[in-house]
Amino acid sequence: MADYDRAAVDRIIAAVAAEGRTTLTAPEGRLVCQAYGIPTPAEGLAATAEEAVALAEDIGLPVVLKIVSPDVLHKTEAGGVLVGLGTAAEVAAGFETIVANARAYKADAEIVGVQVQKLLTGGQEVIVGAVTDPTFGKIVAFGLGGVLVEVLKDVTFRLAPTTLEEASSMVDGIAAAEVLRGVRGAPPADREALADVIRRVGDLVTDFPQLSEVDLNPILATPDGATAVDVRIIVDPEPAPEPVRFSQEQILAAMNRIMKPAAVAVIGASAEPGKIGNSVMRNLVDGGYRGEIYPINPKSDEILDRKAYRSISDVPGDVDVAVFAIPAKFVPAALEEVGAKGVAGAILIPSGFGETGNHELQAEVVAIARKHGVRILGPNIYGYYYTPENLSATFCTPYDVKGGVALSSQSGGIGMAILGFSRSANIGVSSIVGVGNKADLDEDDLLTFFEQDENTSLIAMHLEDLKDGRAFAETAKRVSAKKPVVVLKAGRTDQGAKAAGSHTGALAGNDKVYDDILRQSGVIRAPGLNDMLEYARGVPLLPTPQGENVVIITGAGGSGVLLSDACVDNGLSLMEIPPDLDAAFREFIPPFGAAGNPVDITGGEPPSTYRNTIALGLSDERVHALVLGYWHTIVTPPMVFAELVVDVVREFRDKGVHKPVVASLSGDVEVEEASEHLYRHGIVAYPYTTEKPVAVLGAKYRWARSAGLL
Amino acid sequence: MADYDRAAVDRIIAAVAAEGRTTLTAPEGRLVCQAYGIPTPAEGLAATAEEAVALAEDIGLPVVLKIVSPDVLHKTEAGGVLVGLGTAAEVAAGFETIVANARAYKADAEIVGVQVQKLLTGGQEVIVGAVTDPTFGKIVAFGLGGVLVEVLKDVTFRLAPTTLEEASSMVDGIAAAEVLRGVRGAPPADREALADVIRRVGDLVTDFPQLSEVDLNPILATPDGATAVDVRIIVDPEPAPEPVRFSQEQILAAMNRIMKPAAVAVIGASAEPGKIGNSVMRNLVDGGYRGEIYPINPKSDEILDRKAYRSISDVPGDVDVAVFAIPAKFVPAALEEVGAKGVAGAILIPSGFGETGNHELQAEVVAIARKHGVRILGPNIYGYYYTPENLSATFCTPYDVKGGVALSSQSGGIGMAILGFSRSANIGVSSIVGVGNKADLDEDDLLTFFEQDENTSLIAMHLEDLKDGRAFAETAKRVSAKKPVVVLKAGRTDQGAKAAGSHTGALAGNDKVYDDILRQSGVIRAPGLNDMLEYARGVPLLPTPQGENVVIITGAGGSGVLLSDACVDNGLSLMEIPPDLDAAFREFIPPFGAAGNPVDITGGEPPSTYRNTIALGLSDERVHALVLGYWHTIVTPPMVFAELVVDVVREFRDKGVHKPVVASLSGDVEVEEASEHLYRHGIVAYPYTTEKPVAVLGAKYRWARSAGLL
Repeated sequence: MADYDRAAVDRIIAAVAAEGRTTLTAPEGRLVCQAYGIPTPAEGLAATAEEAVALAEDIGLPVVLKIVSPDVLHKTEAGGVLVGLGTAAEVAAGFETIVANARAYKADAEIVGVQVQKLLTGGQEVIVGAVTDPTFGKIVAFGLGGVLVEVLKDVTFRLAPTTLEEASSMVDGIAAAEVLRGVRGAPPADREALADVIRRVGDLVTDFPQLSEVDLNPILATPDGATAVDVRIIVDPEPAPEPVRFSQEQILAAMNRIMKPAAVAVIGASAEPGKIGNSVMRNLVDGGYRGEIYPINPKSDEILDRKAYRSISDVPGDVDVAVFAIPAKFVPAALEEVGAKGVAGAILIPSGFGETGNHELQAEVVAIARKHGVRILGPNIYGYYYTPENLSATFCTPYDVKGGVALSSQSGGIGMAILGFSRSANIGVSSIVGVGNKADLDEDDLLTFFEQDENTSLIAMHLEDLKDGRAFAETAKRVSAKKPVVVLKAGRTDQGAKAAGSHTGALAGNDKVYDDILRQSGVIRAPGLNDMLEYARGVPLLPTPQGENVVIITGAGGSGVLLSDACVDNGLSLMEIPPDLDAAFREFIPPFGAAGNPVDITGGEPPSTYRNTIALGLSDERVHALVLGYWHTIVTPPMVFAELVVDVVREFRDKGVHKPVVASLSGDVEVEEASEHLYRHGIVAYPYTTEKPVAVLGAKYRWARSAGLL
Repeated sequence: MADYDRAAVDRIIAAVAAEGRTTLTAPEGRLVCQAYGIPTPAEGLAATAEEAVALAEDIGLPVVLKIVSPDVLHKTEAGGVLVGLGTAAEVAAGFETIVANARAYKADAEIVGVQVQKLLTGGQEVIVGAVTDPTFGKIVAFGLGGVLVEVLKDVTFRLAPTTLEEASSMVDGIAAAEVLRGVRGAPPADREALADVIRRVGDLVTDFPQLSEVDLNPILATPDGATAVDVRIIVDPEPAPEPVRFSQEQILAAMNRIMKPAAVAVIGASAEPGKIGNSVMRNLVDGGYRGEIYPINPKSDEILDRKAYRSISDVPGDVDVAVFAIPAKFVPAALEEVGAKGVAGAILIPSGFGETGNHELQAEVVAIARKHGVRILGPNIYGYYYTPENLSATFCTPYDVKGGVALSSQSGGIGMAILGFSRSANIGVSSIVGVGNKADLDEDDLLTFFEQDENTSLIAMHLEDLKDGRAFAETAKRVSAKKPVVVLKAGRTDQGAKAAGSHTGALAGNDKVYDDILRQSGVIRAPGLNDMLEYARGVPLLPTPQGENVVIITGAGGSGVLLSDACVDNGLSLMEIPPDLDAAFREFIPPFGAAGNPVDITGGEPPSTYRNTIALGLSDERVHALVLGYWHTIVTPPMVFAELVVDVVREFRDKGVHKPVVASLSGDVEVEEASEHLYRHGIVAYPYTTEKPVAVLGAKYRWARSAGLL
């Protein structure tokens, strides 16, 4: 921005550093704001009572007086603030009082002077701030002042810097946003001015990483502006350096060799059943991997009918991936050889690194990998799958249902749940990856690969922490514009976060920060494990909706009410049915049925009523998605319903009409088979629940909105 | 309460009625408050400016002036309020201004005078109110003033009257409750005084049903009291009468004959398959009902090998229940005969009554039933089941898994989902009841029966509205102290409520009112259909916990984090493990495992580690419930885990130790069978989800707390 005076800020920071301070004085803070175009009240610094009176009369009474002293941080406590002085006499007396108070508070306090500030009244108090988050780096915060932010934690965060649009979304994004639009006859605040301040604060901390904390509290928001009344800025002279990042090209070069290797070596391959090195070999072979497989074991000549090598150095051809199935203590030496061989990826299955407190060994291994340009997956993982290559580089069982879902997990237990659920629900999977301690390869590396992987259409990730939250957020924002990214962030709650800490040693971030920034990144956040798995299963099957108009068609009025509840819970818009469409629906339903939305066709209807109303919903261009509620009756048994829905949906797909259709089936146990039949044909259907089908549709909508497709 | 001056309120209401007014003036409102011991600011009514000055000097300056006129309801708008008049001159001038403003607002306004009120400053503004809710009758409300109640709807409700304890729970029950305890160094408000005002308001509207709305807004809450600054009271001279209620004895007398009939007649029994009258006959016979079954059909001599009668009047013996399987229009005449026969319950399966707009027919049927002392179930239902009597009085299929869960639904579709899920999950059921239009028998009648039914241990109800919310709440409070009552209230959201309206013609209440009053009644509210069914299935299997200390024992650290999240989401307390217990757990787990809570035994452990740690949790008296996280490994396969858990839990049960144990299983598909094995043995276990087992435990805890068992 052309109007930023960076040199001025540089000078202030230098002065603060020169004095060994970490906190800016109020006048310094004000100068920083001015340098970045953030409005502050008219004010001046007085060295004497006479100067204070002159300043006050110049600025205009009434005024506020505040002590300025590097030795008095908590001004109010020290009696260093006087508000609402309305006459020259009051200002003169106030000056003396404040200075005396400061001396009483700390006898040898260095007193720079007294700040004389115009007293602003009216308007709404808000807070704009910036902090340095251990996961995400510089982030900006916005909230209303007072109890709303303190007691109700009604505050929102974004990565800094923000665009003006993102800053506006913060102003509109707090629970009490309505207050700024004017309630109880109060005039609306100047929300554009607030967004502008947020953007400027984000730019400021981005330009000056040394500013570890900026607090504009309060800002007074009035109908015609926003003024930072109090400014508090903390400096960290040696801010943490940016994490090392690889370029997109570097990541892809490595990931392509890792996910689509021409040759895989198994370090510690074994012929002995029950050993991890045996399970990995078996899974590679039994999984049908067609590349070269090189067992490495100094004590064997042959393993599973394959020639074994004493060392990877002895392998004749190139090797892309080395899967480690040896104890942690042997990893460094083996990794040196792997590196010398020019391997792209070291898959470190063994545990006994950072997760057990052995951070040194983990650092040593990373250093060896960096030296040789090897990327590490793990350590402390179950391995990984990439089904297009029939690659099961894991000690678990092979997975063979190919499809478009890529999954990753930070924890082995969750990885096994992903595997079991996928097998049970017959989910088509492109890849399952354990990332474990994430000593090197991280979720953003995986995202970068899956982004361009033609075999992947949705990415679902379980994570407990992010090593580089900013890189993840930026990558996820890019990727989620193309493919849905579902994230299950564990350690959401304070107690949960504590458990994350005890398990991985990772500092789990404040959940509200994660929540806001994941949303900013276009990620679909799953509230729980089962939700993540159901989203992964269902979202890719649904066509992308072309608009927000959802229509419920139900044979059970009771399901209609619950489906409506679920739509609202999931942020879906029940279409206001226009009169002509309402009349068209009424043509098909009994006179005591209810049109409107839900369209209640009533319980005793034959298959044709379901068919006709669903066909109408699919054919009318104003309708963008259908939620079906089925009620088991003798007239329309479950499989009859399922087959007619599959038929009519296919009929319209053949005509080029692609709308998401989900269904909730109420009935006796036959509805289970009917739901499976529907699911197999791309209609996301569940028995005995009105919540799940709508939640999956809601996830699809959240993605479509954030990807700008609606 | 001895200190209520009811006569004073009577006089005021009479005066208001005499003038044909529906709103009390401010001085009248103040007198009502005084009569019920609710503090109001010192004040007086001035007819002239001189009187106003005298009053102000007597009360103490500064004061507030407010116009008093039955013709000026919105005083502020009319310029009828002046705040903070600090001198006698200001008061005199203010009096004239206010009167002039009122005249300008409405030239012929009757001006009673000007209220001179002490200006109260400081303290926190709160609102206490009472309204007449169409579902629940008199309810009291409490919230903070300003944006918190207006924008964030941070308000809580209870049935009036409240105890002082319930009133206190309101003061502590709003989201911003912390504000009243003092934040930012502000002194705490006198919460006892606030609770006292709530109780008095509840008593007031209970004693005087004509007071349809009372608004004390604001009340100023200070450290030493609570003063109602503004009082607004609206009178309804003809309040709705209390609904007709049967005594507990009357309900039980009828319900016992209905649920355990010695003889059932089927009105409209048919030999023709596909007819409802045939399905009902078949289900009674095939279901194994051992009482008398009388088919009633004027055109048949025999149906399903039973002698058929032309009319119920022809049946030789007594009849307890008549199931109607005839079209709506024939019901009144048949019901006359049924009533003359002395039948206890008429089960009205047919639709075509209130739900299709035919309210007259429904009213006619109810009148006939009342005349004869017959209770009606329905109309517009699938019928009902009572398994201890092998009674399947329904056109659906028989249900034969006997057990302790009683279920009801307002909608047939939801009833079918209940049936299917129960069959699929093998839930032991005592009863399933369709209540449909609830023309007569309602949920509180069912509750009263199930309360004393030795075959029922948990009651789960789907409902869209309550015909008599107060009777339900009072009955549920009594019953839930003995047995868990789970409620799925459909139409939770505004859009959902609208759908409820269009379907049943019922006015769905504001959800926050429902939510608070259901909680006040000790009900476990299920957020969705699937949750209700899972609570019904799992809660009765779990022993009641003896305290709040929950311990997570997990083989997968990742599951531990998610299980911790779920515990916090469900209001469970993760036990702070005392050092000696921590040391005892560490004895059994690897050195790199994490004790604390979750107890992370790590993934590669043998069955003995699970067994030892679980046994420790069961044996230590300070631990009250266990949440298990299983990770599928070769060392401890799923069924080995399931069997050892069943063994160790049984071992402790045999020793008299009954603690709830739930489990989340992560692994390949074998965990499904293992989960079923655990469930069959009373350990609530699920595969692929960390949320569900904890949600069921949370439901058990919510019940145990509200029943006063913790």
